[in-house]
Amino acid sequence: MKIAVLGGDGFIGWPTCLNLSDKGHEVHILDNLSRRWIDTELGVQSLTPMDSIQERTRIWYQETGRRIHFHLIDIARDYEVLKQWLAEYRPEAIVHFAEQRAAPYSMKSDRHKNYTVNNNVNATHNLLNALVELGLDSHLIHLGTMGVYGYSTVGAAIPEGYLEVGIDTMEGETARQEILYPSNPGSIYHMTKCLDQLLFQFYAKNDGLRITDLHQGIVWGTHTEQTRRHPQLVNRFDYDGDYGTVLNRFLIQAAIGYPLTVHGTGGQTRAFIHIEDSVRCIELALQTPPKRGSRVKIFNQMTETHRVRDLAELVARLTGSQVAYLPNPRKEAAENDLVVRNDQFIELGLNPITLEEGLLSEVVDVAKKFAYRVDRSRIPAVSAWTKDIASAIDRDPEGKRLKSVG
Amino acid sequence: MKIAVLGGDGFIGWPTCLNLSDKGHEVHILDNLSRRWIDTELGVQSLTPMDSIQERTRIWYQETGRRIHFHLIDIARDYEVLKQWLAEYRPEAIVHFAEQRAAPYSMKSDRHKNYTVNNNVNATHNLLNALVELGLDSHLIHLGTMGVYGYSTVGAAIPEGYLEVGIDTMEGETARQEILYPSNPGSIYHMTKCLDQLLFQFYAKNDGLRITDLHQGIVWGTHTEQTRRHPQLVNRFDYDGDYGTVLNRFLIQAAIGYPLTVHGTGGQTRAFIHIEDSVRCIELALQTPPKRGSRVKIFNQMTETHRVRDLAELVARLTGSQVAYLPNPRKEAAENDLVVRNDQFIELGLNPITLEEGLLSEVVDVAKKFAYRVDRSRIPAVSAWTKDIASAIDRDPEGKRLKSVG
Repeated sequence: MKIAVLGGDGFIGWPTCLNLSDKGHEVHILDNLSRRWIDTELGVQSLTPMDSIQERTRIWYQETGRRIHFHLIDIARDYEVLKQWLAEYRPEAIVHFAEQRAAPYSMKSDRHKNYTVNNNVNATHNLLNALVELGLDSHLIHLGTMGVYGYSTVGAAIPEGYLEVGIDTMEGETARQEILYPSNPGSIYHMTKCLDQLLFQFYAKNDGLRITDLHQGIVWGTHTEQTRRHPQLVNRFDYDGDYGTVLNRFLIQAAIGYPLTVHGTGGQTRAFIHIEDSVRCIELALQTPPKRGSRVKIFNQMTETHRVRDLAELVARLTGSQVAYLPNPRKEAAENDLVVRNDQFIELGLNPITLEEGLLSEVVDVAKKFAYRVDRSRIPAVSAWTKDIASAIDRDPEGKRLKSVG
Repeated sequence: MKIAVLGGDGFIGWPTCLNLSDKGHEVHILDNLSRRWIDTELGVQSLTPMDSIQERTRIWYQETGRRIHFHLIDIARDYEVLKQWLAEYRPEAIVHFAEQRAAPYSMKSDRHKNYTVNNNVNATHNLLNALVELGLDSHLIHLGTMGVYGYSTVGAAIPEGYLEVGIDTMEGETARQEILYPSNPGSIYHMTKCLDQLLFQFYAKNDGLRITDLHQGIVWGTHTEQTRRHPQLVNRFDYDGDYGTVLNRFLIQAAIGYPLTVHGTGGQTRAFIHIEDSVRCIELALQTPPKRGSRVKIFNQMTETHRVRDLAELVARLTGSQVAYLPNPRKEAAENDLVVRNDQFIELGLNPITLEEGLLSEVVDVAKKFAYRVDRSRIPAVSAWTKDIASAIDRDPEGKRLKSVG
């Protein structure tokens, strides 16, 4: 199959491309390389030494004899270029990762808020618009986030995208209806994924586009079967305060002998998935496209849930580290439960890698191996969600620790 | 009160400014004059002869001694200029009309779709972002649309923004919860208003912004108490296939002796409100701002509902015209019921002008009076909602009439 991977140079995009190429698909990366530019802006870099996309694809060809094609295109800014590319290449499927994906980065300043909204909304809308304009029937797979649901449930498990509710009618009866799960985003970044959802609903309904939206949990892990084949195929590993996920930051803190910093009570429950399973889910989704004219197909792409403090304890146990509790720069509930349905991927044969079994290899093969490359000053999470929180952290001695611990 | 009216040169913006100025407020218009540029693009003009905004405000000053200040600012494109303006003037309230507001225009081509999404999302987001950045506590009043609800109800009246639903819990009980009414937009334009809603929900929750969202029906009527004071204060009257509402188009067809063109069966039920009531609602909303930290306040700004074919019959009865039924270029249900709650404005003292009593003056004082200015070629609605509908209309002899009748 001819597949375009938008954002194919990124953390999930790259191993996705390798996996799809490995399975015999013709893979085209469209990427503006913005994630590398943001590394430059923030003065951070991947813990793992990461080559240019041109070099990575060259190594892949050398190792496997398979070509991955790279096209430098900014799909959010250059609608006409994107349209021309799609008209010429006519991919059968499109995997869309081309969005700014860090919640803390999206909250850094007014400039970062505008950038995230602009980039993400335009990337998605340009793509949908061009598909309709060209009459292309490509299957579009989008990487969404569990964060579209928000974490405010009412004791119900989070379904896969659609929620059945009862509505009181004027005749005094209760009508049952399935609705898109009410969204409650916790950051500008998460909000853009909620906006995406509405764009998908409209274009599926009005134009019959075939769309799959994957609401993904927090991805952990670094290596996949394909990235292990050569050191220069290694995936990126972010540990900085903006792009590093909670687990990566624990791993790095442990590797350099610092306490694991938990924000707030650590009672926030989050959904997780290993990068290898994430890449496998995308392959499964490609194999089971929705029919033309049917509603957007939504999967929850996660395999287990954990409280943040339990994760910290797990990493502490594996590594002998201490846990430190600090003020929370995010505006969110201190404690929440989270029960998530993921039946669809399990039925399609997904066999998850659990944190319990995979975490040790992450400690040894990644965090400890590359610990010499850590820039300690980049570990603290400093993007505050509101002006009030920012100034409270500035005033608070514990907050000063938030800015300095690492 | 110092009030900024974004889009204050438009159809509802202008009479809103006059009314607020008349009531003693200090009114500042921020407008990029895009609506005038779109007139130029489409080669259409208001039926009523409309002066420049500079001239209109000069006449208002001459008639009343009150200044309305005009600032040429593109709030969607010039975030920094908007922010500087807000920092300098610090308005206590902001009325936000600054969006592309025609569904057919938003569906004309891929360029028009992109323009509508870009302009509307950025206008709203820039404004919210700047208010937070500056720490301004202005009350923001936004003009939304009844179209955010879609027309797919399940036998329940449309509430004012929030719907109480029952959700099955894991314990087998039913939890009652109020959610934002599930949106089901019928065009790109309507979709942008649904995106706006999510932006408002986020900024009210995260930053405590005080926001009122007015879900307005189709506005009819031309004159208000203030626009009647001088011929050069007259409001715009659109009758073209893109910006002309269904009622305006009937009025013009009647005035020039053509049949009233109903698309499809005319069974679509729509909500309506007179321009004078619309302007009054905005004044009422200004007087009752939500508290800081409370959720977005949503009003349904409409006063009556009618089926399109009943409207056509009403105009036909008043004018002696015929009614002609043509293919529908929109993708929508042929027939729908619509029951809408509008208790909040009624409780605040709104006393609606009904179509039954106000329509004749519209026929005589506006449509017939200015009929000599009608460009007949501009009346047909030609923006098709999908490529399939466009080609079906092209193939169909009735469709040819759709493109030529007027």
